[in-house]
Amino acid sequence: MKNIDNIKLDPTQVLVLGFAAVILVGALLLNLPIASIDGKSIGFLNALFTSTSAVCVTGLVVVDTGTYWTAFGKTVILILIQVGGLGFMTMATLFAIILGRKISLKERLVIQQALNQNSLSGLVRFTQYILIGTFIIEGIGALILSFTFVPELGWSKGIAYSIFHSISAFCNAGFDIIGGGVSLMPYVTDPVVNFTVWALIILGGIGFSVIVEVANLRKFKKLSLHSKIVIFMTCLLLGIGFVSYLLLEWNNPNTIGDLSFGGKLMASTFQSITPRTAGFNTVDTSQLTTASKMLTIVLMYIGGSPASTAGGIKTVTMGVILFTVITEIKGREDTEIFGRRLTRNIVNRSLTIGVIGMAYIIISTMLLTITDSGFEFIEVFFEAASALGTVGLSLGITSELSALGRIVIIFSMFLGRLGPLTIAFALARQNRNSKGAIRYPEEKIIVG
Amino acid sequence: MKNIDNIKLDPTQVLVLGFAAVILVGALLLNLPIASIDGKSIGFLNALFTSTSAVCVTGLVVVDTGTYWTAFGKTVILILIQVGGLGFMTMATLFAIILGRKISLKERLVIQQALNQNSLSGLVRFTQYILIGTFIIEGIGALILSFTFVPELGWSKGIAYSIFHSISAFCNAGFDIIGGGVSLMPYVTDPVVNFTVWALIILGGIGFSVIVEVANLRKFKKLSLHSKIVIFMTCLLLGIGFVSYLLLEWNNPNTIGDLSFGGKLMASTFQSITPRTAGFNTVDTSQLTTASKMLTIVLMYIGGSPASTAGGIKTVTMGVILFTVITEIKGREDTEIFGRRLTRNIVNRSLTIGVIGMAYIIISTMLLTITDSGFEFIEVFFEAASALGTVGLSLGITSELSALGRIVIIFSMFLGRLGPLTIAFALARQNRNSKGAIRYPEEKIIVG
Ligand SMILES: [K+]
Ligand SMILES: [K+]
Repeated sequence: MKNIDNIKLDPTQVLVLGFAAVILVGALLLNLPIASIDGKSIGFLNALFTSTSAVCVTGLVVVDTGTYWTAFGKTVILILIQVGGLGFMTMATLFAIILGRKISLKERLVIQQALNQNSLSGLVRFTQYILIGTFIIEGIGALILSFTFVPELGWSKGIAYSIFHSISAFCNAGFDIIGGGVSLMPYVTDPVVNFTVWALIILGGIGFSVIVEVANLRKFKKLSLHSKIVIFMTCLLLGIGFVSYLLLEWNNPNTIGDLSFGGKLMASTFQSITPRTAGFNTVDTSQLTTASKMLTIVLMYIGGSPASTAGGIKTVTMGVILFTVITEIKGREDTEIFGRRLTRNIVNRSLTIGVIGMAYIIISTMLLTITDSGFEFIEVFFEAASALGTVGLSLGITSELSALGRIVIIFSMFLGRLGPLTIAFALARQNRNSKGAIRYPEEKIIVG
Repeated sequence: MKNIDNIKLDPTQVLVLGFAAVILVGALLLNLPIASIDGKSIGFLNALFTSTSAVCVTGLVVVDTGTYWTAFGKTVILILIQVGGLGFMTMATLFAIILGRKISLKERLVIQQALNQNSLSGLVRFTQYILIGTFIIEGIGALILSFTFVPELGWSKGIAYSIFHSISAFCNAGFDIIGGGVSLMPYVTDPVVNFTVWALIILGGIGFSVIVEVANLRKFKKLSLHSKIVIFMTCLLLGIGFVSYLLLEWNNPNTIGDLSFGGKLMASTFQSITPRTAGFNTVDTSQLTTASKMLTIVLMYIGGSPASTAGGIKTVTMGVILFTVITEIKGREDTEIFGRRLTRNIVNRSLTIGVIGMAYIIISTMLLTITDSGFEFIEVFFEAASALGTVGLSLGITSELSALGRIVIIFSMFLGRLGPLTIAFALARQNRNSKGAIRYPEEKIIVG
């Protein structure tokens, strides 16, 4: 008789099954009549959709979170977001450690035991460290947000709003309880909400290890290659997004055209940050110019940084592809970034993640044009990219999707959240022992 | 005083300037009042558009070729197509020889002098060989097509139609003189037209060296790696296209839904072949399902094979990317195709061409949404991909584009035709002398 202890799961299987289990529990809870304000069950497919969207920190919704769910329902969603966002970030960071990525200084001190001894106590302490850091950041975020929400909505509702949106922002979840499907549009020119949400989104989407390194080292030159690429690509994408949205939307009266100069700057900044897979919006996404929509699709595909709460193929993956192109144009054989050479493994892995991500968006877009033929092409293309990147922005079709279309989106959110990491991990593990010729100093980075 | 002989041009500069000169001469000729049936000049922008489309063998048209142009105008267009298609194929094949690609057997015998001695006479003889081969194939094509066109249209018109469409098909130009913008739709179930045009498109788009090799060797195993990849990828793309179009359009009454079973098979085959950048169509492209349109965009982006009359990033470029992904998933460090290892150079070069091509389609799509905001997104997306791939298929917006939109498309066609080859050549030249570690047998191939 086979002992159950003999069934060994590798870490990626644990991750996938663990997330599936949390999603299922969430769906069962949200399916309860007490979760809905009208006292009737929402039905399993919609409960599953909402639970998947929350655990995968996507933010696509088939019902308006603020007005449809009871306090119980909203609490379940908030817990699912926190478990999903935090759990994924922790697991991804642990994976990076397992893979032996170079970890530096303070980070190294904290997790040395986990690294060297692979002991349970070390891993537990490391996880505690991430947990505490997350709660501190989310707590500060909620505190600052309360300066806007409490005067406007009173103590109890104001505090609830502050906590919900702080967690949702840091976890890059994009769920809001403002009501009416307007996301953060009422606060398009509110500096408190803007600056706080920007900071939370960027911190959540940049990865735990980068935050620790930057907090301890402060100098760009001393950072690990991984952190350098993350910071460079994040700044590059934010810069391109900001300038492009400002120019493309300048005269659009349905988005930023009627705002003051400062309002235009603020709204364009928000718009450039949110495709780093946050999913909040302060202008009506469906009213963007077509060029802005296309740009948003590209930015959503790229997404945030590895081992963070963000989705997409990841900034580092795109950075490796970008630098390979630049190095190739310069006529060098090896991909070179910031004075370091990347192994062929990393380049091929990045290419693989990029190609699979793009193929999946194309195929799911085609499926959606068949299951939901009534929508415009860009609407389903945008929705498919948003789901795979776990972004949560939408041109407004989510609640009108057919049952089959919802199932496609559920799969996309799940694969979009777990796919790049598990692919990268599986590829990294099997490549781990292959030896390359030693030429210039090499440095490992996380992609996907 | 500087001697004019001292100004040295590298081969890519000769190619780019040569094509620009031919386009300009063509535009001046088509701008003449005697080129237009109404006796008035078409205007320089439209003449330039038509000349660029012909020389770059694209097939996008702002006026209906069959009804707008006089016999003089049509003759000019046909000459531009022949010069463009043949000139490019010859130049690209010569480039491949200059780069020292492994050439085999008969091919080697023919061009040995050009290869080893780099003598003018060798190159001239080689060029003659391509010229003769082209005229034989086009002549046979015209002869077979005349069995349909002569009975239908009488001797003089029938022969003119046969020659024009044979050349247009072999050069993957996509221009037709059927009239009324219907392309080959009247012949959707005509076996003579179908089989002949299929053969001409595939032969033109597969590359001269592959034709020579296959004709001489006949056995797949003995072919060069380049030919193996070309044949494999061509079959793969044709297979995917055929099955997908058949399924996606089966019930579409506006395309193949009302055809007999045989007609459905024939139309789906044609539809799968034409994005190999031919640009003819036997069903109304604008009536395809959205999923089929998306698939066509992907196939147009990939395009035909290197050193042929076809456009796109090329089958070999896509093949290298595809096999790198497969090899990476299998856990091998080197990209392996058909028992051969590819150098990192080739992989990086393919990645570079793929990324630049995609970036260009995205940027030109965004520009077109600004210059021509009245169209649907998929219409301009499709047009941008068609122009860059020099395909010539359109959802019907070409003649309605604004002046700025036409300029965008003119640039796209020019870059789409010369870009991948010149990029690949420039990259290949500078990488040529870099040494890689010798591990498994390597074999060079042409990408772009
Ligand atoms: K999100
Ligand atoms: K064409």
